[in-house]
Amino acid sequence: MLEKLLAKIEENKDLMIDIRRYLHENPELSFEEVNTSKYIADFYKDKDVDIQTNVGNHGVKVTIDSCKPGKTLAIRADFDALPIEEATGLPFASKNPGVMHACGHDAHTAYMLILADALIELKDEFEGKIVIIHQDAEEVPPGGAIGMIKDGVLDGVDNAFGIHVMSNKPYGEIHYVSGEAQNGRAKFVLKVQGVGGHGSSPHEANDAIVAASYFVTAIQTVVSRRLSPFDTGVVTIGSFDGKGSFNAIKDSVVLEGDVRGMSEEVRKKIEDEVKRIVKGLEVMYNVTCELDYANDYPVLYNDPELTEHIGAILSEANLEDVTGVVKAGPMSPSEDFAYYAKEVPSSFFYVGAAPVDKEAFPHHHPKLDIEEGSMMIAARSMATVVADYFSNDQRENK
Amino acid sequence: MLEKLLAKIEENKDLMIDIRRYLHENPELSFEEVNTSKYIADFYKDKDVDIQTNVGNHGVKVTIDSCKPGKTLAIRADFDALPIEEATGLPFASKNPGVMHACGHDAHTAYMLILADALIELKDEFEGKIVIIHQDAEEVPPGGAIGMIKDGVLDGVDNAFGIHVMSNKPYGEIHYVSGEAQNGRAKFVLKVQGVGGHGSSPHEANDAIVAASYFVTAIQTVVSRRLSPFDTGVVTIGSFDGKGSFNAIKDSVVLEGDVRGMSEEVRKKIEDEVKRIVKGLEVMYNVTCELDYANDYPVLYNDPELTEHIGAILSEANLEDVTGVVKAGPMSPSEDFAYYAKEVPSSFFYVGAAPVDKEAFPHHHPKLDIEEGSMMIAARSMATVVADYFSNDQRENK
Amino acid sequence: MLEKLLAKIEENKDLMIDIRRYLHENPELSFEEVNTSKYIADFYKDKDVDIQTNVGNHGVKVTIDSCKPGKTLAIRADFDALPIEEATGLPFASKNPGVMHACGHDAHTAYMLILADALIELKDEFEGKIVIIHQDAEEVPPGGAIGMIKDGVLDGVDNAFGIHVMSNKPYGEIHYVSGEAQNGRAKFVLKVQGVGGHGSSPHEANDAIVAASYFVTAIQTVVSRRLSPFDTGVVTIGSFDGKGSFNAIKDSVVLEGDVRGMSEEVRKKIEDEVKRIVKGLEVMYNVTCELDYANDYPVLYNDPELTEHIGAILSEANLEDVTGVVKAGPMSPSEDFAYYAKEVPSSFFYVGAAPVDKEAFPHHHPKLDIEEGSMMIAARSMATVVADYFSNDQRENK
Amino acid sequence: MLEKLLAKIEENKDLMIDIRRYLHENPELSFEEVNTSKYIADFYKDKDVDIQTNVGNHGVKVTIDSCKPGKTLAIRADFDALPIEEATGLPFASKNPGVMHACGHDAHTAYMLILADALIELKDEFEGKIVIIHQDAEEVPPGGAIGMIKDGVLDGVDNAFGIHVMSNKPYGEIHYVSGEAQNGRAKFVLKVQGVGGHGSSPHEANDAIVAASYFVTAIQTVVSRRLSPFDTGVVTIGSFDGKGSFNAIKDSVVLEGDVRGMSEEVRKKIEDEVKRIVKGLEVMYNVTCELDYANDYPVLYNDPELTEHIGAILSEANLEDVTGVVKAGPMSPSEDFAYYAKEVPSSFFYVGAAPVDKEAFPHHHPKLDIEEGSMMIAARSMATVVADYFSNDQRENK
Repeated sequence: MLEKLLAKIEENKDLMIDIRRYLHENPELSFEEVNTSKYIADFYKDKDVDIQTNVGNHGVKVTIDSCKPGKTLAIRADFDALPIEEATGLPFASKNPGVMHACGHDAHTAYMLILADALIELKDEFEGKIVIIHQDAEEVPPGGAIGMIKDGVLDGVDNAFGIHVMSNKPYGEIHYVSGEAQNGRAKFVLKVQGVGGHGSSPHEANDAIVAASYFVTAIQTVVSRRLSPFDTGVVTIGSFDGKGSFNAIKDSVVLEGDVRGMSEEVRKKIEDEVKRIVKGLEVMYNVTCELDYANDYPVLYNDPELTEHIGAILSEANLEDVTGVVKAGPMSPSEDFAYYAKEVPSSFFYVGAAPVDKEAFPHHHPKLDIEEGSMMIAARSMATVVADYFSNDQRENK
Repeated sequence: MLEKLLAKIEENKDLMIDIRRYLHENPELSFEEVNTSKYIADFYKDKDVDIQTNVGNHGVKVTIDSCKPGKTLAIRADFDALPIEEATGLPFASKNPGVMHACGHDAHTAYMLILADALIELKDEFEGKIVIIHQDAEEVPPGGAIGMIKDGVLDGVDNAFGIHVMSNKPYGEIHYVSGEAQNGRAKFVLKVQGVGGHGSSPHEANDAIVAASYFVTAIQTVVSRRLSPFDTGVVTIGSFDGKGSFNAIKDSVVLEGDVRGMSEEVRKKIEDEVKRIVKGLEVMYNVTCELDYANDYPVLYNDPELTEHIGAILSEANLEDVTGVVKAGPMSPSEDFAYYAKEVPSSFFYVGAAPVDKEAFPHHHPKLDIEEGSMMIAARSMATVVADYFSNDQRENK
Repeated sequence: MLEKLLAKIEENKDLMIDIRRYLHENPELSFEEVNTSKYIADFYKDKDVDIQTNVGNHGVKVTIDSCKPGKTLAIRADFDALPIEEATGLPFASKNPGVMHACGHDAHTAYMLILADALIELKDEFEGKIVIIHQDAEEVPPGGAIGMIKDGVLDGVDNAFGIHVMSNKPYGEIHYVSGEAQNGRAKFVLKVQGVGGHGSSPHEANDAIVAASYFVTAIQTVVSRRLSPFDTGVVTIGSFDGKGSFNAIKDSVVLEGDVRGMSEEVRKKIEDEVKRIVKGLEVMYNVTCELDYANDYPVLYNDPELTEHIGAILSEANLEDVTGVVKAGPMSPSEDFAYYAKEVPSSFFYVGAAPVDKEAFPHHHPKLDIEEGSMMIAARSMATVVADYFSNDQRENK
Repeated sequence: MLEKLLAKIEENKDLMIDIRRYLHENPELSFEEVNTSKYIADFYKDKDVDIQTNVGNHGVKVTIDSCKPGKTLAIRADFDALPIEEATGLPFASKNPGVMHACGHDAHTAYMLILADALIELKDEFEGKIVIIHQDAEEVPPGGAIGMIKDGVLDGVDNAFGIHVMSNKPYGEIHYVSGEAQNGRAKFVLKVQGVGGHGSSPHEANDAIVAASYFVTAIQTVVSRRLSPFDTGVVTIGSFDGKGSFNAIKDSVVLEGDVRGMSEEVRKKIEDEVKRIVKGLEVMYNVTCELDYANDYPVLYNDPELTEHIGAILSEANLEDVTGVVKAGPMSPSEDFAYYAKEVPSSFFYVGAAPVDKEAFPHHHPKLDIEEGSMMIAARSMATVVADYFSNDQRENK
């Protein structure tokens, strides 16, 4: 099955690039991807698959059924873009002002459509079902995954795989991370309410800027003293909205915080500590606090057995353009693929996409570009993994 | 001279109220008082005085010359309004949206015009000169006084007097403060420049919110540890402009601070300490700071001899509607009359103006109103002081 | 009466110096002044007075009764010494190692004995009673005054006067302070209890040093933000007992704090704030706090009428060696004469005692010495005030 | 060779226990182990080995030379005790008051002597040399290893192995850690020098407690903001020596800090940050700081190849009493075996020693005891590793 798959993909290389460039030119923000969703659904029209649209919000679920008993594997590609004004100068740069595919989701969708097309044509070659998850809204909590799962996208699914192209990893490399791979996250908004007054009379007011500043210094102890030195956790106050007049004491300020943790224990610990410090702040400075603390994306946990196996078979596969398969350590950013991985044993791996002949910019940068060959590597490696998955499956079922 | 003066003023009581209400209805912001300035100058047209307009910015200097040798006394009234949306519901409320006479300068100007008119008529009764300083822009540093002084408003002046009506002091009372009476002030703007980054990767950024928050906690020690417990000083951070995205580390924030001090030594001490702490902040958190620290209004120093004398003669005067003359302590707010007092021995005193039958609101409040009778008390008391000034003068000269 | 009094005092000038030197050589710590107390009581033996010993602790009350109706005036001198190793090198330096009259109480007692002797001899010259309060234990809270008052030292007393010699004021000057004159005080001991542990594992411990350090930074806001800029208040953490091993997390630390306030409102405000911040600390850092907060000496309030009168009569008196009588501002240190002043209208004034030909050291310094002539000035000025007190009294009673 | 080794060890099981109990009863502090050193050297007297004493300080180097060419392997056991008052109640509890083998070094030495004895007897069975490193002073920086290395203990050595018994790991388990295994460490002492003064007059002093407390809050940012969330680092202020009098402002305080880092980069980063913050502190609070910052034990880096191999052969060995061989993660405490590992590829592994039938106390606890059977497991497992080492060696040399 693998050779045929790879051959089919190879045939559609140009189409893959065209699709990616079309998507890049027409980006849509998370939760607003009406046209992208329709574009994807249209791709499958007249193909021998089951198509479900508006799964969750604008998600598309495509089921390729071999009509033979076997496992069900989900593979996922996301398709939303970011509120960034593109500055790449590419001929296919965004035509939607202030919106840009600055995270490579265009590439994910392009490779996935071509791979899906090949899998559809070869569906007699495997036993079981493949669910293609075209997911919306990866970038913005609560994320699209949670809604698609609620709408049944994982029903009957045994495992799920996904890929992210990475502009900060060398083109040609595939990276995999076993176990905890990407941080879980929480966001909080803290309003500190004091009492305003004249700058010259602090005793008649209750200075919210002072209370909030002491909070920022106190919150440092969560990471420095409350977490194990072997744990991974971050608390960032990304916004301190206390603009006012120099000579008036500020009555209230609003802080916004970003929390990361590489295990559910760490996330819980940080949440408890932030809440306790806020309670202490109220007492200590006689202020009233409103804390809205929301956990969103979980820790992305790659099933170690599946992931080590994927690492092994990709290493052995000697795929075209692949220069190395690297076992890597966990990464800071969060990823809502984590929701699938909480439901079924899953693995999410990374395809290097740093441009070969020009400067590489980080994800979410207005100048982000990827080496387009990385899409072919993504398609080839996911094809390899899928083919292996069902060949194993057959062996195990016999 | 005094009885005649008081009688003249009494005759114009209604006009005084009309003038105040006209000004109240037509407020203008500091440094933009074109019409008010013209209104004042017009008042003096056809009167036997020397009028100078556009002194400093929109200031008006009126010289009443007895044409006899003697001392020269300046008396000052300010006429600018504030960027506040009036909410009094008065029939003569501001017709200029977002601008309001919320500090009583309308009353100052009204009483002064009527008093000046009386003095002009009675100019044969004294020896020397009276300079009426109609000052613009008291509310906004650098203030109007400094420009008027530069343009010569104090040339040849021996002493200066002024009055503020006070909505927070009982109607009927006159308060005087000997020596340091109102705080000197400084403003500073501090930009703390770090390095932005992703909320999950603090080590690749340099968090400006964290550095600025530690600054706010450190700056508390200026008052708590560096000033004498017997000194009066305040440092308020009135603005902490650090609004950003919860999941991005903020690259820079801008703080604005308000400094008060009741002596030049205290002001210098605070300035030195703020500057030192900023320097330490740069080193401690590896940030770059831009500090723009500007002293503006000086400490208002009421010449003790003059002021005690004013207290004494007002106590003895038994003026109509005056229920008490109170020796009071210093006050927090700053006042640019202080610039005159730095140049010549001066005295600035306070006329209670709390509304008799309704709630009193503080100055700079959208509902501020004053008991209009306070204008008559202001006029009567300043008349008393002026008459006494020149009678003393005559005595001394003999 | 005054001339006779002054003459008597003059006769005993040498004795006064002898007494002072004897006391200086034989200092006793607060609450342990057995011999000093006996020495004082012995001085009055065979004199026509009523002597009460062990009033409070080691206090001595001496009543000089004119046996005529009239007011009763108390005059007070304290007699305890300090736990300081004397380093003056004086021929009459302390023979009691580690104990020293480093605050001038030896001088107070010496001048008072000589003055008392004169008053006893002249008791027919006034109407009423004079109570000499020889007070123990001024230096150590709760102080000797409180116990003497409890034992009735002020029963029937109308007013109380006292003097402190001041090594930091020029010899020849008398200073008086009307109204609030010396700070009220509180002491607190705060134990912060966390959980100890290995320095490398903060998450398994709860670092008491970190919690206590944040407390020290938070407590700065009491003075900087909670008090009026016109109030006088101080919070000092004088002791941070957190000595431990560098590589063990400290389980508990003990802080000791000193609080000063120039009004009872300020003292109460500080107490409330310290208590609130401690409560907040418990929540914020999950520590347990034991706070022992004790107000001790009140604000010393000099009755303004009495004090201004004293200032006036001393100014007019032209006493020998007196170069000036100065109206001064309040002072930081606390003084348990304040307890008498809470009970009866009182006045406490200051006699300059800076050595004329050598360096002046501050009170409580191992090298403190005073110009001995200051004792004569103390005696003369208190004699003047007492004589005036009873002459006024007589006038009023007639 | 292995069977013979294991048999020899088995024969001396009782002696091993006797030795351990003798050492336990006679503990000596680091750098003072004169008798222990002599005891060890005496053990080897009359045996066919080369003995060097006073290597470094009290270290003993024993060379077992097969007199055949081959590799040279060092195996290390430490023998110093801790300044802890023993509270175990064991019959062989410490007879040296205040000193205790509370870290298991007695067990290390006991197993090593018995193993060495067996290796000496079997020295014809291997090719090459075995160096037994009996190391003093592991507990106290700079540690004994550094001196022994300087005196040549590693000259000609190819690899080094060591074992620690662990009261907090189950008896029967062997743990190994590949790569970074134990933190590197630094200690610092920071004197913050301000200016003392009276508690009521902060402006005349410069409060060292305040400056040092702000330092403690600032230093939290090193871990919370400067390190990568994936790095392991700790900064603990274990001692804050600021005891003073409640009513005097403290002139100076001394802090002591403990730094841990799991890589040399992290250690360097922390050192740089601490030094920068101290410099900033000097400026910010106008204090003078003396910082004595000393890196001591490096990160313990277990050669991954060697260590994985040891894990594998111990897993296969099915040694008596061994219930599991566990690949574990890194640990917080530091270990001066790290110095050997910096010089030659090395591996240090861990033998579970939690008492089977009673409560386990942590290392450095006055009640620490170990399951004595763990010494036999240590001897057996090190014997296995050594036998394997030389069998490999022979194969490689052929």
